[in-house]
This record gives sequence, structure tokens and C-alpha cells, in this order.
Amino acid sequence: MESPWSLDPQLAADTVPVGDLALSRVLLANDANYPCLILVPRRPALTEFIDLEENEQMQLLAEIDTAARALKAATQCDKLNIAALGNQVAQLHVHVIARFRNDAAWPKPIWGVAPARAYDGAARDALLTALRQKLKIGGG
Amino acid sequence: MESPWSLDPQLAADTVPVGDLALSRVLLANDANYPCLILVPRRPALTEFIDLEENEQMQLLAEIDTAARALKAATQCDKLNIAALGNQVAQLHVHVIARFRNDAAWPKPIWGVAPARAYDGAARDALLTALRQKLKIGGG
Repeated sequence: MESPWSLDPQLAADTVPVGDLALSRVLLANDANYPCLILVPRRPALTEFIDLEENEQMQLLAEIDTAARALKAATQCDKLNIAALGNQVAQLHVHVIARFRNDAAWPKPIWGVAPARAYDGAARDALLTALRQKLKIGGG
Repeated sequence: MESPWSLDPQLAADTVPVGDLALSRVLLANDANYPCLILVPRRPALTEFIDLEENEQMQLLAEIDTAARALKAATQCDKLNIAALGNQVAQLHVHVIARFRNDAAWPKPIWGVAPARAYDGAARDALLTALRQKLKIGGG
């Protein structure tokens, strides 16, 4: 019997939950420098995008599109960055990142540039509310 | 009338052509540190993944899957990284990157870590040949 899915502890520690789409758990990264949604397909033992079944790849694609539109609408960002890396956390996860021309790393990729910056609590709650409304999901 | 598609000059300068899939021009980045295919949908004035029509998103997804499998088979890499950033080159392009546990940046993302390293000509030609065979495309 396949073991059930559970969220990688490092991903859990670095994020707050937004809610669940049909396939993916949606998380908000704990870094106010770059509002970033992380989509984690709720399938056990997944590491590579190419290991997803074709119909689940298409579902994940649709959810990336949904998440990217929600994040863009909620943040009014200048650019979206989308990335599935997974060198340090093996569990398959996709970053959907809102970029601004005045953010801490622009125009470089976000990784390794600036230390994570905590959200102001009220600002984070407002962002979570806006994202859940646009994603049509309840509280995480 | 819509202007025809042409490859961004910076992308052209940083790569060699592998060939064309149904939607995307496939390029090999000029950096032997991390074998990297770049897929560029041949559609004018495209910047964001969410600006692609739904059927073209699905086609691009299928081509990312194809390119990732070809790259993994040709390089026997340890991990795939897939990313659409586009902060510096606006034309929509997707990086499909072969990562190794002993590469110059592992386990970090590749950006900004090591200067690009030129391929040995014969090694690059062998890689191009293997990739074209696996992608079922003719010479670029």
C-alpha cells in the first residue's frame, strides 16, 4: 500500500498554508521580500515534474496558471517567476513568485540575494485573504 | 497584422540552436557547468506564461516534459530544475536544467554562482547529437 502524502517539514517550516486546490497544497513563503506561492502536489514520493502522470501534469499546470493569476492580481507585481527546483527539498514543489522592479533582487533570480524578511502580521493576513478569495479556497 | 516571431538577440547570443519542436525553439545554453535547454515558444510579444492560450500552455507543458526527459537521458543528471524567470530577457523562455550533486552550484540554484564555462567543442557536439536524437528533431 502506498504511504499517504504529508507535507515536507522544511516546506511547512518556511511557509504558512493558504489552502488546497484539487491537486496541490498552496503555501505562502515566509519572506516579505518577494510574495511567493508554493504549490505542492499531494502525491507521495514525488520529486520530478516528469514523474507526474500526464493528467496530473495538466492539472498542476492549470493550478500554476490559477495561482499565478491570483498572485499577480493580489500583488500587482511587475513580473512572475515560476520555478521547480527541489535540490534541497526533494518533495516536488513549484514556486510562483511575484517580482517587482524595486525588489531586493531585481532583475536577478531571488535565490541567495537577501535574507528572508518577516511579513508584518496584518499585511500577511490581508494578502492571505486576497489570495484565498482569488483562489476560491477557504482558510488554511 | 501581428509582427512575426523572432528570437531575442540575448537568448541567441547565449545559446546554440538545437532545433524546433511544434511550438518551441529549443536552445542549448553556452555554459558547460550545467547542461541547460531553453524552450522559447515561437509566438510574438509573449512575456508571461499566463499570457499563452490554454492549448499552447498545454503544448508548452508537453514540450517541457519532452525536453526534460531528453536532457535527463542524455546527461544522466541527478536532478532537473525547471524555471521561467524572464526578468532580464522579457521574451518568454523556460530553462530546463540538468543538475549534478557535484556541479558548481549544487544544491543552490544555478544563478549568480559561477561564471559560465565554455563547452569543449566535441563534447558539445556529442550532447547536441544525443539531444536531437531524443527530441526527434533535425540539426539546428
